Amino acid sequence: MLNELEVGTLVRPGPGKLQFIPLGGLGEIGKNIAALVYGNDIILIDCGLAFPEPDMPGIDLVLPDLTYLYENKDRIRGVFLTHGHEDHIGGLPYFLKQVNVPVYGLRLTLGIVELKLQEHQITLHPKSHPVEPGEVIKAGNFSVEFFRVNHSIPDATGLIIRNPVGTVIHTGDFKFDHTPVDGHVADFHKLAQLGQEGVLLLLADSTNAERPGYTPSEKTVGRALDNIISQAPGRVFVASFASQVHRVRQVVESAVRNGRHVAIVGRSMENVTHKAIELGYLDFPAGTWMDIDAILKEPAEKTLILTTGSQGEPMSALTRMSTSDHRKVEILPGDTVIISATPIPGNEKLVARTVDNLYRRGARVFYGAGTGIHVSGHACQEELKLMLNLVRPKFFAPVHGEYRHLIHHAQLARDVGVEPNHVLIGDNGNVMEFTKESANIIGQVTSGKVLVDGTGIGDVGNIVLRDRKQLSNDGILIVVVGMDSQSGLLVSGPDLVSRGFVYVRESEALLDEARHRVKTALANLEGQGLNEWSAIKSAVRDTLGRFLWEKTKRRPMILPIIMEV
Amino acid sequence: MLNELEVGTLVRPGPGKLQFIPLGGLGEIGKNIAALVYGNDIILIDCGLAFPEPDMPGIDLVLPDLTYLYENKDRIRGVFLTHGHEDHIGGLPYFLKQVNVPVYGLRLTLGIVELKLQEHQITLHPKSHPVEPGEVIKAGNFSVEFFRVNHSIPDATGLIIRNPVGTVIHTGDFKFDHTPVDGHVADFHKLAQLGQEGVLLLLADSTNAERPGYTPSEKTVGRALDNIISQAPGRVFVASFASQVHRVRQVVESAVRNGRHVAIVGRSMENVTHKAIELGYLDFPAGTWMDIDAILKEPAEKTLILTTGSQGEPMSALTRMSTSDHRKVEILPGDTVIISATPIPGNEKLVARTVDNLYRRGARVFYGAGTGIHVSGHACQEELKLMLNLVRPKFFAPVHGEYRHLIHHAQLARDVGVEPNHVLIGDNGNVMEFTKESANIIGQVTSGKVLVDGTGIGDVGNIVLRDRKQLSNDGILIVVVGMDSQSGLLVSGPDLVSRGFVYVRESEALLDEARHRVKTALANLEGQGLNEWSAIKSAVRDTLGRFLWEKTKRRPMILPIIMEV
Repeated sequence: MLNELEVGTLVRPGPGKLQFIPLGGLGEIGKNIAALVYGNDIILIDCGLAFPEPDMPGIDLVLPDLTYLYENKDRIRGVFLTHGHEDHIGGLPYFLKQVNVPVYGLRLTLGIVELKLQEHQITLHPKSHPVEPGEVIKAGNFSVEFFRVNHSIPDATGLIIRNPVGTVIHTGDFKFDHTPVDGHVADFHKLAQLGQEGVLLLLADSTNAERPGYTPSEKTVGRALDNIISQAPGRVFVASFASQVHRVRQVVESAVRNGRHVAIVGRSMENVTHKAIELGYLDFPAGTWMDIDAILKEPAEKTLILTTGSQGEPMSALTRMSTSDHRKVEILPGDTVIISATPIPGNEKLVARTVDNLYRRGARVFYGAGTGIHVSGHACQEELKLMLNLVRPKFFAPVHGEYRHLIHHAQLARDVGVEPNHVLIGDNGNVMEFTKESANIIGQVTSGKVLVDGTGIGDVGNIVLRDRKQLSNDGILIVVVGMDSQSGLLVSGPDLVSRGFVYVRESEALLDEARHRVKTALANLEGQGLNEWSAIKSAVRDTLGRFLWEKTKRRPMILPIIMEV
Repeated sequence: MLNELEVGTLVRPGPGKLQFIPLGGLGEIGKNIAALVYGNDIILIDCGLAFPEPDMPGIDLVLPDLTYLYENKDRIRGVFLTHGHEDHIGGLPYFLKQVNVPVYGLRLTLGIVELKLQEHQITLHPKSHPVEPGEVIKAGNFSVEFFRVNHSIPDATGLIIRNPVGTVIHTGDFKFDHTPVDGHVADFHKLAQLGQEGVLLLLADSTNAERPGYTPSEKTVGRALDNIISQAPGRVFVASFASQVHRVRQVVESAVRNGRHVAIVGRSMENVTHKAIELGYLDFPAGTWMDIDAILKEPAEKTLILTTGSQGEPMSALTRMSTSDHRKVEILPGDTVIISATPIPGNEKLVARTVDNLYRRGARVFYGAGTGIHVSGHACQEELKLMLNLVRPKFFAPVHGEYRHLIHHAQLARDVGVEPNHVLIGDNGNVMEFTKESANIIGQVTSGKVLVDGTGIGDVGNIVLRDRKQLSNDGILIVVVGMDSQSGLLVSGPDLVSRGFVYVRESEALLDEARHRVKTALANLEGQGLNEWSAIKSAVRDTLGRFLWEKTKRRPMILPIIMEV
């Protein structure tokens, strides 16, 4: 049972106790961030954001609610980043504006963070620095060591977090790739050694916990892409995630092998690729790279264009090219387009629409499951079991996944022999407390979503969203009446204005009748000597609401406005 | 090249010419309807509707634009229905209100149609009647014969449409199931015989044209379900499509085998199941069926509840049960829930949310690919090739699918030897004209979408939708000013009212400043002697739009309202 602590209470574990507090990423996809607490010290693992759900119209980004951290900011010793994806680093600019603490991560991770902080015009705490795998960072009672894992971005790591209660391993986002593109195999030996020594707690990525088997190597994608690129008759377009540097590297290598120049279209692809080149993670052999204007003058079969838009995002380069809406490039018959990604849940229809549009323009299109042109960056069940068996943790908590993923991952842990009551399935804000011998969820701190809309952070909440949803379903009908401020008598109106409700020019009779109904209702009120604004407003809402539902079976927002004149 | 006919022009093929005019279902999923035209005669194949896309907020249903048919209503000889799914029959009530012609289909198909027409309080044309496979209906110059195919509903058929130009075969929605639940194997012999005799044109279902291999038999689902049901410790819930009568039958059979009573929860499941029982397509052995109130009093392991909500629809029975929002039933620990369906594209997140909620309530949940508890109702590539090779059509047009499906299906046809220029990839509204020797797209008639919102049909168009989208993204800001009708001077306001923009109580300073900006702008106008409404309105829009964008990076709809007093 939960011992509910008052929300926002300062929680400080007693001696010999370690707390793990996930503040995002559990029971959801995105905004991964968690705190580890020992005595007076707090360290953070990642600081991500999420993208809005369909029921959040107009919202740009979703941040985790970090009230707990802001109330304990003096105790935070640093942020440890497992890798450079948005759902792990995207919340940093917002967090660092409140709490400027040192940030640690591998070289590419910090490189991408710096790109992001530049946009927000902030700089890293001076103690921040890139670390190497094996390097140990002291942070109060914690010492943190980074170890390599494989994932869909270079420099992905897990963390070994030593503290007086016992060793904690956080996998970060991971898979095991035995033939990684950069040669950096995950550090099996370190994990095996830790498993020998004894691990208190394993926190592991649950994304693919529903999927049996193994995730194939990224190298298999390189071969599948090369196969298509080598046989393409004309131009080749490859859309992928900008941060998938290994994918980009394999595409560039294939282009070179097949005598094609490479241009890049799409801002995020340009930014990340330049950063990766600058830091030595990517190499364009001399003469390979070309400006987009130049490459369009080359023979089609000598060109390859790397681009964004693998999720069918409406403003992305590929989407625009597929609808002749791009400033410089349009897709033409004979082009080959490779969408080297799978749709993120929720984006399926956008991707399908892009594929349809590409076909309509006469392109050959490669996409979707079974083509070998994409693999996941996350471990499937066999890999998750391998991680569990290498580490042999005393306690286990699945992280990074929706609730069903956590459930499946917990079952895998029990299957390989973790004691059932040593497996904790938590939720954001849970305070999981560990001693050398016990694990319990002892309480709850504030957690949740902070919505970003334009420059506003947190000023759009449930009321505004509810209004937006009502407005989008049936529109709005505004009823304006003028009232004499002395006598309280109605002197003008009612005037009706609607938006998003019906097409006004074709609904004049309906709106005339509505106006008439309001007029009658207001006259009745006046007859009864009622002229309080609240009475007038509810008479307008009731009369119109009923009338419009009856006539149209719609429920527009009805907004009475009384003007005193 | 298209020879563009004027939209809405009456098109009448010359002697020896047959026209096929799809009015829905090509380049989209849903609202399947097509016309075949010979001389003065038109027959219709199906009359479906579609469900709204995410960019159609507030819309309930999408109908095909049937202007072409309404302009040629005297020539329509009948509607031939291939099966009873919404995307093939859902448009009928709307169409029949305009054009009351005979409707033909197999017994269950017409049974479901009648359920639907009752809701709309209309009855079928007296010449309508249920037909048997092999029966031939004369309709002007056409004679139409129904033949059995397999699909995810009983009584699914294709059509053999004989006419003076040549035989046309329309597959309807189909797969080949060698071990169908009802024993009705698709009519291979008829297809083979027609292939021998010579077929002018094949029109075939393209839904799964991207998928290699074969769709498994519906019987395999029965075995997978039985496996789960026989091992379930407590109550079993099975969610499926109401019209999947074969699935329902297999669930009931498994319940009987395992000593469980069966109750039904969910209006559409109740309606269709009762109709199927009434027509003899389904049988509940004595003592099996129970009322929901009664079954809840039985021991858990003696009960099974059939329900709707396999798509995670927010108002459906399963969704409500999973959130304790159902009037009678809630999911409890120990319950087993089987979601016997795959998410329709666009519903993935809703289904995932339902699964998560079921797990949160402690249920065992079976769902998703690889579990064997669902199979598609549509033919995969090997079946599509078999259909093509049996029928050996002279001309081929893929129907029923998004554009990429049509493209893939066309390629399959070329692969099995249909002459490339005998394969027509069309679009809704295309007039495809066939002689014994040629096939061409010769023009275009009106086609498109008619949106249904509440009782309104077609009164929500692009302007209203655009407004709804803007309202949902950033809300609305209404600016009311009172103007003296004599002097043209502003006498009250500006008053600002917002909805869905910012949370007003926390944004008073912003709105105060906005009011001040408007006031200044209006004073400037007055100073210049400008008091036309249009000038005032655009000053309000420009001033506020700029100010709010600068401060919030949002673009609410700005609605100036001037009251004359």
